[in-house]
Amino acid sequence: MNNKSFISEVANRTGMDSEDAQMFAYTLVDVMNECFQKGDVVSFSNFGSFEVKKRMERIMVSPNSKKRMLVPPKLVLSFKPSSTIKEKIKNGGLQ
Amino acid sequence: MNNKSFISEVANRTGMDSEDAQMFAYTLVDVMNECFQKGDVVSFSNFGSFEVKKRMERIMVSPNSKKRMLVPPKLVLSFKPSSTIKEKIKNGGLQ
Repeated sequence: MNNKSFISEVANRTGMDSEDAQMFAYTLVDVMNECFQKGDVVSFSNFGSFEVKKRMERIMVSPNSKKRMLVPPKLVLSFKPSSTIKEKIKNGGLQ
Repeated sequence: MNNKSFISEVANRTGMDSEDAQMFAYTLVDVMNECFQKGDVVSFSNFGSFEVKKRMERIMVSPNSKKRMLVPPKLVLSFKPSSTIKEKIKNGGLQ
């Protein structure tokens, strides 16, 4: 389900119009981005938490040339699902 | 930043009251859950995409007892950040 159809479904259910709903979704991402820049963890109790993590420098062997290469450290955004959602997905049924 | 303070910040910026904003966030998660149960990928263009993946059965060696154990297959929720957000996080500055 892509962005647009998803947001209009949520708008329908909450009685909001789609534009307000889209604005809310964009603002949600903006505020999350600002949190990430400050190094904050953003957590949603019934969904999961997002955190910027530092992936350390590591040595990798190129599959083609078999040469060893140094992969520099990198900041990555990681997501950890909450236990509620893990259960729902594991059981594969609608709870 | 936890759920409550996060949602009220987004509510402030969009002129919504906090309760409507909280309702929107819960509905967002509900609709996502329904998509996951149907095996749909949920993608937000400026943020990333969520997908339920099957982690295959694998053999693990218990670090304590050194015994080999079969870990059964499992459904897990995975998140893939969009290129936009990867860039923002990599550069570590507000864009």
